[in-house]
Amino acid sequence: MLDLGLPDPVRAPGLPEEVRIHEVGPRDGLQNEKSLVPVEVKAEFIARLAAAGLRTIEATSFVHPKWVPQLADAEELVPRLAGLPERHPGLRLPVLVPNERGLDRALAHHAADIAVFASATETFARRNLNRSADEAMAMFRPVVGRATEAGVAVRGYLSMCFGDPWEGPVPVDQVVRYGVRLLELGCAELSLGDTIGVATPGQVTALLAGFARAGVPVDRLAVHFHDTYGQALSNTLAALREGVTTVDASAGGLGGCPYAKSATGNLATEDLVWMLHGLGIRTGVDLRSLVATSGWMAGRLGRPSPSRTVQALLGSAGG
Amino acid sequence: MLDLGLPDPVRAPGLPEEVRIHEVGPRDGLQNEKSLVPVEVKAEFIARLAAAGLRTIEATSFVHPKWVPQLADAEELVPRLAGLPERHPGLRLPVLVPNERGLDRALAHHAADIAVFASATETFARRNLNRSADEAMAMFRPVVGRATEAGVAVRGYLSMCFGDPWEGPVPVDQVVRYGVRLLELGCAELSLGDTIGVATPGQVTALLAGFARAGVPVDRLAVHFHDTYGQALSNTLAALREGVTTVDASAGGLGGCPYAKSATGNLATEDLVWMLHGLGIRTGVDLRSLVATSGWMAGRLGRPSPSRTVQALLGSAGG
Repeated sequence: MLDLGLPDPVRAPGLPEEVRIHEVGPRDGLQNEKSLVPVEVKAEFIARLAAAGLRTIEATSFVHPKWVPQLADAEELVPRLAGLPERHPGLRLPVLVPNERGLDRALAHHAADIAVFASATETFARRNLNRSADEAMAMFRPVVGRATEAGVAVRGYLSMCFGDPWEGPVPVDQVVRYGVRLLELGCAELSLGDTIGVATPGQVTALLAGFARAGVPVDRLAVHFHDTYGQALSNTLAALREGVTTVDASAGGLGGCPYAKSATGNLATEDLVWMLHGLGIRTGVDLRSLVATSGWMAGRLGRPSPSRTVQALLGSAGG
Repeated sequence: MLDLGLPDPVRAPGLPEEVRIHEVGPRDGLQNEKSLVPVEVKAEFIARLAAAGLRTIEATSFVHPKWVPQLADAEELVPRLAGLPERHPGLRLPVLVPNERGLDRALAHHAADIAVFASATETFARRNLNRSADEAMAMFRPVVGRATEAGVAVRGYLSMCFGDPWEGPVPVDQVVRYGVRLLELGCAELSLGDTIGVATPGQVTALLAGFARAGVPVDRLAVHFHDTYGQALSNTLAALREGVTTVDASAGGLGGCPYAKSATGNLATEDLVWMLHGLGIRTGVDLRSLVATSGWMAGRLGRPSPSRTVQALLGSAGG
């Protein structure tokens, strides 16, 4: 990439040699887009992401179509992805599962990886899951239990890990308590979400220190930052320094149009890859191929990508 | 700011307690905008920035109007700012000076602070300054000498400190050599610019280590990052860890429209302030007042602000 004037990668001491990117664009991204994307476009999107080197791609959600019409085609989408893991060894295509009914659907489609979505705050649990945080944990117990019995790996999302728009600051101990419960239920991995994008690096370090004090190995933790206030990449850097090696990101920054009322965009995978490769950290991702994919998807959505890297490398609006 | 769900500030070990923001929006920002802004709007912009708590605001450039028509009104603007330092004790309003002719104009207007603009690469010197890098240094010698004799503080900008679109990676030693020469000429401060926004945190750390090896005290260094690939804030974090306490930023991210061909935007001051305040680092800036100012300016420019924080806090396009 000499034509970009790119300096040689420089390893920073204490950072990992490799990072696994958990790509959430097709699920978390498209779920938060206004447009309904045809199922064949979704399938091609996921195939292109895999071809660009991503090896963990959250594909869709087996949530009730009434709640998330954008992902109402999960049943049609999953069979279209059947050949991908053979073409790309090591490829994982987790699906989100809100409850036992969703788990039944995921198991019927032979999902090898699922994810559940919990909240670190009471208010968000009630608003998003329609039950208390404790009741949500109780609901997840049979989901995680049955999944692990069936040999399915479960990721637990924990949202509102730093701040909550109704409750304000969220205490580290409270986040650690709910996170540990998800791990104790049997989740293999815990993704710590800054759902409203308010965190800054010191808070990230403090939360990860809290999990370390509770005896949680850092390789069971992932981070999930939103770029609402432009902080996602600095927070990721802080997490890498604490030993985190799994980072959630959304191709092209899908899920948060910068000119929508609530700019709750996910960290763009391209901006993340730019930083990681500059730091000499392996991701397996081909950046140009990924940027081309996000440009193509922006065209399907009819709006530019909010990713700075996509904008810069496509030389325009990313469409 | 409880209504934002903002977590309590958390100091990160090894970071400074206070950062001086060198606001470049009125000069570097407006210089790179397509629109010509009326002089009375510029004066109000600077007055609002000062009222928001910024204490170093680069006001304009005494460059030949032919080269930068956006700043052709420097002679009219500077007298309009005359009362500001009295209203805001400690306020500094540096002006850019390209050569001795520019210095004459700045001195005629009683400038107390000026800046000169050099390049760490040969190609950019020839393209931007129309002479070799060495010839540029020779040109600055009488500028810096006469300014310091007159009691005027000089900041030296050094551009292309990491990568150059024509030369590729820029060696640390080369950047340090030119930077040290600027300091030896008499510059009080050296601002290290990632003009094309390609750097990542390891490269920032390596460059600052190079200056430390050359015996340059870190308090004479500032950093100037561009958000072309979304890396500006992570790079700033890396610089803070090395002891840098002066950071350049542009209110509202002025100077780089995200949907222009070359998205060469400056780091947005608001995104920087969000991180610094979250880290418990003092800036003296009132974020809401600054965001209101950038929203007002976006309206004058007729386009949204590219700052994520401005977009989020104004709840829309920032216009």
